[in-house]
Amino acid sequence: MRFAIVGATGIVGREMITCLEKRHLKIDQLRLAASPRSIGKIIKTAYGKITVEGISEELFKNSDIALFAAGSEISLKWAKKAATLGCIVIDNSSCFRYDPKVPLIIPEINPKDIFKHPGIIANPNCTTAIAAIPLWEIEKHFGLKKIIISTYQAVSGAGKEAMEELEKQTCDYCQGKKLEIKNFQHQILFNLIPHIDKFQENNYTKEEMKVVWETRKIFSRPNISISCTAVRVPILRAHSESIVVETKKKITPKKIREIFKKTSGIKIVDDPKKNSYPMPLFASQNFEVQVGRIRQSLIFGDYGLEFFVSGDQLLKGAALNAVQIAELLIKRISK
Amino acid sequence: MRFAIVGATGIVGREMITCLEKRHLKIDQLRLAASPRSIGKIIKTAYGKITVEGISEELFKNSDIALFAAGSEISLKWAKKAATLGCIVIDNSSCFRYDPKVPLIIPEINPKDIFKHPGIIANPNCTTAIAAIPLWEIEKHFGLKKIIISTYQAVSGAGKEAMEELEKQTCDYCQGKKLEIKNFQHQILFNLIPHIDKFQENNYTKEEMKVVWETRKIFSRPNISISCTAVRVPILRAHSESIVVETKKKITPKKIREIFKKTSGIKIVDDPKKNSYPMPLFASQNFEVQVGRIRQSLIFGDYGLEFFVSGDQLLKGAALNAVQIAELLIKRISK
Repeated sequence: MRFAIVGATGIVGREMITCLEKRHLKIDQLRLAASPRSIGKIIKTAYGKITVEGISEELFKNSDIALFAAGSEISLKWAKKAATLGCIVIDNSSCFRYDPKVPLIIPEINPKDIFKHPGIIANPNCTTAIAAIPLWEIEKHFGLKKIIISTYQAVSGAGKEAMEELEKQTCDYCQGKKLEIKNFQHQILFNLIPHIDKFQENNYTKEEMKVVWETRKIFSRPNISISCTAVRVPILRAHSESIVVETKKKITPKKIREIFKKTSGIKIVDDPKKNSYPMPLFASQNFEVQVGRIRQSLIFGDYGLEFFVSGDQLLKGAALNAVQIAELLIKRISK
Repeated sequence: MRFAIVGATGIVGREMITCLEKRHLKIDQLRLAASPRSIGKIIKTAYGKITVEGISEELFKNSDIALFAAGSEISLKWAKKAATLGCIVIDNSSCFRYDPKVPLIIPEINPKDIFKHPGIIANPNCTTAIAAIPLWEIEKHFGLKKIIISTYQAVSGAGKEAMEELEKQTCDYCQGKKLEIKNFQHQILFNLIPHIDKFQENNYTKEEMKVVWETRKIFSRPNISISCTAVRVPILRAHSESIVVETKKKITPKKIREIFKKTSGIKIVDDPKKNSYPMPLFASQNFEVQVGRIRQSLIFGDYGLEFFVSGDQLLKGAALNAVQIAELLIKRISK
C-alpha cells in the first residue's frame, strides 16, 4: 500500500507518522508532503529517512491513501482532486464532515459506513472522537436521551504554534516579561478562553456545534439531544470533558464499568481512594481514552450517569483515528 | 462597630481587610488575629497599622463581629465560644453551613434568613456563591427545574501555598527543574485535577456536594435537581463555571440579559463579535461575577439556558460575601 501524508510536518502530521509506525502498518511507500517552507526537510521514520516534498498531482497519482492534516484550505484545494486521481483521502479537516456523501468514521463505532465513499473519508473533530468512544457504549447498551458536555481543551488542539505560545508565555511570565498573544484571542497562561473556532448564529461556537453535528452523524441519531460548551485551558496536550447523560434504560456505574472494561479504546481510571481519575498529563501520548469519575447522576437518577474523560486529542482525536480508518480501508481492499 | 478578623494573614483574610476598606465600612476598631507564627506582624490598613495578635477569649469579648477565615479546625475550636462571649461570627469554613440553626447567607438572595441566628452566620462555598448570583435570577423569574454545573477552579481556592505551588512549578518548568508537588494530589501545571476536597460515599467530592447542599439551602429549595463536577485547573485566581439549566417557564437569552443587566453583583460580558466572554484573568479582583456565553439550550429548548460565569472566588466567593453579611448585620443592629 502506498501512503502519503499531507501536512506531514505539522503537529498532527508528525503524530500520523508515529501512529503508522506504532501500529506496524505494512507500507510499500510513504511520501511526506507539506507547505513550500518545509520542502527539502528530512524526516527520520521507521520506513527510512524521507525528504519532504510539495503537494502535487503526481503525488496523488502514485499514492493509494493520503492522510490530510494540513488544514481546511489545503483540503478544499486538493482532496477532491486527489480522489479523482485515484487516491483515497482520509481528511482531518472539517470541510467534508457534514457532506452526506462523505462517511465520517470512528472505527470502533461505525466501521460499516466506510463501505460507500466518494474517495474522501472524513476524520471527526478531536472533542467528538474522545467523547464518542464511551458514549457509544452507553448508546448501545442503555440508549442515550440527553448528552451534556463541558470541555477542557489543550492548546495543542490549535496547532504547534499555539503550543509554543503557551510555553513562551510561561517562560516570559517567570522572567517578568510582557506576554505576547498571537494564536489565541487572549492570554492563555493562567487563563481560559470559552471560545474555540468561530461563533455561529445561535451563539454556540463551531467547535461546540461540531460535537453536536458529528455525534449525530456517527451515531446515526440525527435528532439526539446533545449540547457542548467548549473551553480552551492552559494545558499543553490532551482534552478532557465533563459529561452528563440521560439514558433510556436504567443504568448504574457498576454496569457501565463492566462494559467499559471490555471496550477497545477505553482505559478506566477511576479509583478515588488512590487519587486516580482521568487527567490530561497522564492521558497524553496514549492511544486509549481515560474514563473515570463514574457516578450515578444526581439529575437523572437511575436513568443518568456523570463521568469525566481525558484523551490525547492528537491521537484518538486526530492521527490515531485517521490511521485506524486507513487500517479499515486496507482490510477492505485486501479482501 | 468593633471588628475582628481571624486568619487575617491568609489569602482570604487579607481580602477581607481590602473589602472592608473598599466598601467604606465604618469601623470603630479592627483587630487582626492569626496563628502563632504570624503574631507580631504589622499589617497596614486604611484603619491604621495593626499588629497581628493571637486568638483569645479577650479578643471576642471586645469585638462585635468576627470574620473567620482560618479553616475548619479554628472555626470548630473558637466560633461557638466567640458567639457565647457576645461576638457574632461570620464563618467562611464549611463547619456550620449545613446546621439547620445556622443561616447560610448570600445577601443578594436570602438576606431575611439572617434575622434568626445562634451567633454564627455561615458564608457559602466559593463555587456555590459565584453560580448562585445568576441562578437566583433565573429561579425568581422562570423557576429552576435542573442545574448542571462543571467548574474550572483556580488554585488560590486551595490557599496561598497552593497558589505559590503553581507559580513555583511554572518557573521550575522553565528552568528544566523537577516539579515539586505538595498541596495538590498531582502536578497542576499544564494539568487539571477533577478532585477538590474529599470523596464522599456517592463518589462525588465534598466540593461538588457543597454546591448541591448549599444552593438548596440558600434558595430554600431542598429538593432542587442540581449536580456539579468540580475540577481544579492551572489558573491562579477566579473560578469559572459552565452551567446548563432547565426552567419551569419559557426563557430566552434576550429576556434573561435584560434581567441580568439590572442585577446587582452581575456584569454581563457577552459580545462574541468582540471576543468578549467571561474569563478568569479579567474577573480577578472584581466584586462582580462575569456572566456570558448566554444561549438557548440545545437540550432543553425554550425551557433551557446555557451560560458561562467567571468570578473572583476570593471576593464574591469568600471575603466580599462575608463583608456584605457584616453590612447586613450592621444595618439590622443600627435599626
